[in-house]
Amino acid sequence: MIQQYIEENESRMLDELFSLIRIPSVSSQHEHQEDMIRCARQWSDLLKSAGADRVEVMPSDGNPMVYAEKIVDPSAPTVLVYGHYDVMPVEPLEQWHSNPFEPEIRDGKIYARGADDDKGQSFIQCKAFEYLVSQGLLRHNVKFILEGEEEIGSPSLESFCEQHKDLLRADIILVSDTSMLSASLPSLTTGLRGLSYWQVEVTGPNRDLHSGHFGGAVMNPINALCQMIASLTDADGRITVPGFYDDVEDVPAEEREMIAHIPFDEEQYKSAIGVDAVWGEKGYSTLERNSCRPSFDCCGIWGGYTGEGAKTVIPSKAFAKLSTRLVPHQDSEKIARLVGEHLQRIAPQGVKVKVDYLHGGEGYVCPISLPAYKAAERGFEVAFGQRPLPVRRGGSIPIIATFEKVLGVKTILMGVGLESNAIHSPNENFPLDMLRKGITAVTHFHLFYDECGK
Amino acid sequence: MIQQYIEENESRMLDELFSLIRIPSVSSQHEHQEDMIRCARQWSDLLKSAGADRVEVMPSDGNPMVYAEKIVDPSAPTVLVYGHYDVMPVEPLEQWHSNPFEPEIRDGKIYARGADDDKGQSFIQCKAFEYLVSQGLLRHNVKFILEGEEEIGSPSLESFCEQHKDLLRADIILVSDTSMLSASLPSLTTGLRGLSYWQVEVTGPNRDLHSGHFGGAVMNPINALCQMIASLTDADGRITVPGFYDDVEDVPAEEREMIAHIPFDEEQYKSAIGVDAVWGEKGYSTLERNSCRPSFDCCGIWGGYTGEGAKTVIPSKAFAKLSTRLVPHQDSEKIARLVGEHLQRIAPQGVKVKVDYLHGGEGYVCPISLPAYKAAERGFEVAFGQRPLPVRRGGSIPIIATFEKVLGVKTILMGVGLESNAIHSPNENFPLDMLRKGITAVTHFHLFYDECGK
Repeated sequence: MIQQYIEENESRMLDELFSLIRIPSVSSQHEHQEDMIRCARQWSDLLKSAGADRVEVMPSDGNPMVYAEKIVDPSAPTVLVYGHYDVMPVEPLEQWHSNPFEPEIRDGKIYARGADDDKGQSFIQCKAFEYLVSQGLLRHNVKFILEGEEEIGSPSLESFCEQHKDLLRADIILVSDTSMLSASLPSLTTGLRGLSYWQVEVTGPNRDLHSGHFGGAVMNPINALCQMIASLTDADGRITVPGFYDDVEDVPAEEREMIAHIPFDEEQYKSAIGVDAVWGEKGYSTLERNSCRPSFDCCGIWGGYTGEGAKTVIPSKAFAKLSTRLVPHQDSEKIARLVGEHLQRIAPQGVKVKVDYLHGGEGYVCPISLPAYKAAERGFEVAFGQRPLPVRRGGSIPIIATFEKVLGVKTILMGVGLESNAIHSPNENFPLDMLRKGITAVTHFHLFYDECGK
Repeated sequence: MIQQYIEENESRMLDELFSLIRIPSVSSQHEHQEDMIRCARQWSDLLKSAGADRVEVMPSDGNPMVYAEKIVDPSAPTVLVYGHYDVMPVEPLEQWHSNPFEPEIRDGKIYARGADDDKGQSFIQCKAFEYLVSQGLLRHNVKFILEGEEEIGSPSLESFCEQHKDLLRADIILVSDTSMLSASLPSLTTGLRGLSYWQVEVTGPNRDLHSGHFGGAVMNPINALCQMIASLTDADGRITVPGFYDDVEDVPAEEREMIAHIPFDEEQYKSAIGVDAVWGEKGYSTLERNSCRPSFDCCGIWGGYTGEGAKTVIPSKAFAKLSTRLVPHQDSEKIARLVGEHLQRIAPQGVKVKVDYLHGGEGYVCPISLPAYKAAERGFEVAFGQRPLPVRRGGSIPIIATFEKVLGVKTILMGVGLESNAIHSPNENFPLDMLRKGITAVTHFHLFYDECGK
């Protein structure tokens, strides 16, 4: 039994997971270049000892890929497991209650950057695989591909897939990098949003100016940037960029009906994140807004004097990081162009605007009629004691759409994250209970997959 | 002759000025606390050796005050010289071409923080005084008061004046802390703008959120802050805060006429600061906008992820530093209240707004009929070879209004700064030529003041 195996091996497993977490593999920060390589090697060692016949740290255009495989029967179906070993930056560091790269167990949860996203969740896949190999229960082939650039938009993965189509050939892709409605409301993610992400630089005067001598006579680039950002959404919470909604598919009535029946306590939602009101596009519920509808957020902004006290200055420059979440059928490159052009168009006189498109990707929908989806559903039922709800989620894993495009394979999203795991935030954590249930669910996916067929 | 005296003593004078500049007396940054005291002591030594009978570094509620006096005849009029020994922060440091606290002479200009504002300009007052004492030419009494908190709004000066009214008793106040229209267009400042300055903190969710899971469903505090800032000015460049213009006096027709005759090349103005268009309140010229009309600027903004690359986050908080320049008759405390209340009123649902009023002060107007103004005018005529134009300027020296209120004394603003001196900006500088002409002008002010009477 998998539960017993987990119990007997848990101490070793945690040592293994912690050794992965201790490597600060932050892909967006250049000083962690060496850590990326160390982390890839650590993963390949883990996959080898978990039972892979072949493991390889492979070069890509960016950070290396970790590839592993166990071919039990060339004529049997193949499951390709995808995960990522890179993590988000940890800033603001002062908000962490313990070192983000020194995992600490408090109240039954592992606290660390990557504890969930995605070291913890990919580890679930690795340990289910280890169990099946060790017990001789694997009837189909399993491949692993772990990348080190997911948090910066997977810039190298598409060309890597193009170049290694044969190596990555599979019948279904399995990913643990999503979250469930709650610990008591298990769910499988059947849809993801796409993403476009820009950095905007607004330049006014060629140097910082004294706000007394020049104030009122020249356009201040911060004021200009604020005007531009403010104008991107209207009073109804809709995005004002012309053409933005052209390819947005209306949420089907049946799906809205289903969403309306998901147990959801808006008061609890608000109190969990500490806000006194929700906000969003008029005519849609909170669950629709954060999963089936596009969104626009400024993820960062900076310019002028930001130190202690007062400095009376009109700065030369102001910057922002802007992102939109997209729904299936919206094309991230088209949106990138529309928004980029719109920002130039709305730039006030007296400033110059530079828009850098940092990255993007498409949304995804998984049909719940897929046999592999049924296997996942049954795996969750064993682990959680109830059938998981199929739900679309608001996050983006652009590579899922790319896999479908390049490899022609659908993906099953078997993540067991929780909102309270605080991924991308200070004090990211992962409950030990979810780690155990995740391994159980994935193990049973593989067992049922042989029954359900491709 | 003063010109000859300057020539013979210039090398020593520059050594003295440089020793002042080398002390990084940044009043807004707490780590420079010791430097404030060092700088005050350095000034008192300089004033002593320049000929003061009495010098004292006096405690205040904040940084110490430097007081000095030379009483030649208790029945003669008294000129009180005001200046400040604190300087602005130097950030962004990477834009400086030389160390801001190691003065360097290039192309006949001293480059350093404080070279103009206000170490260089206060030094002019000190050296004119030194010359007059050394030559036995002083017929009236001279007092000096130098503070160390001008750049943070002079929080301790008003109560210091209240407590030392007798000590500071004077007939006229003389200040060199303003700039002229240009090196070839000498001018005397006859008006200043007031100021109100706030820090605003907008809090949305209680932690940074994943923009995929929450995007579209909660108000993003950066988006909220941008909306609030954008809404503070309208399409006509007017400030939208209710009541803001209530006490604004229309610029008198004669003054607009005079301003219209000031030689001003808008193309050159734009090219000097590198913008392709000016911007401001509809119905007013650039020179009116930056001197006689109020203005609103965001001097700094920050929030969310501001590092390299992309981080998809809805931050918990966003911050901004906001300032308005005020015109005479506007009350900075009233404006502080109006803007603070307005910001609370326009805060979107789903965020909380905290407004801290950092500092402020009133505007000032000096009548050109004042005998002391005439003495300044003649002093400038000797130094620059032409009669200076009386002009209102856009900067703020709130203490000028306070002097009038507390000490009942008018101020003559004899600054010889230039726009190109880049005060408050990287590469602040002060031309040696202006240093020499400034000393000449102030020397002759004192000589003519005895003729013109109080």
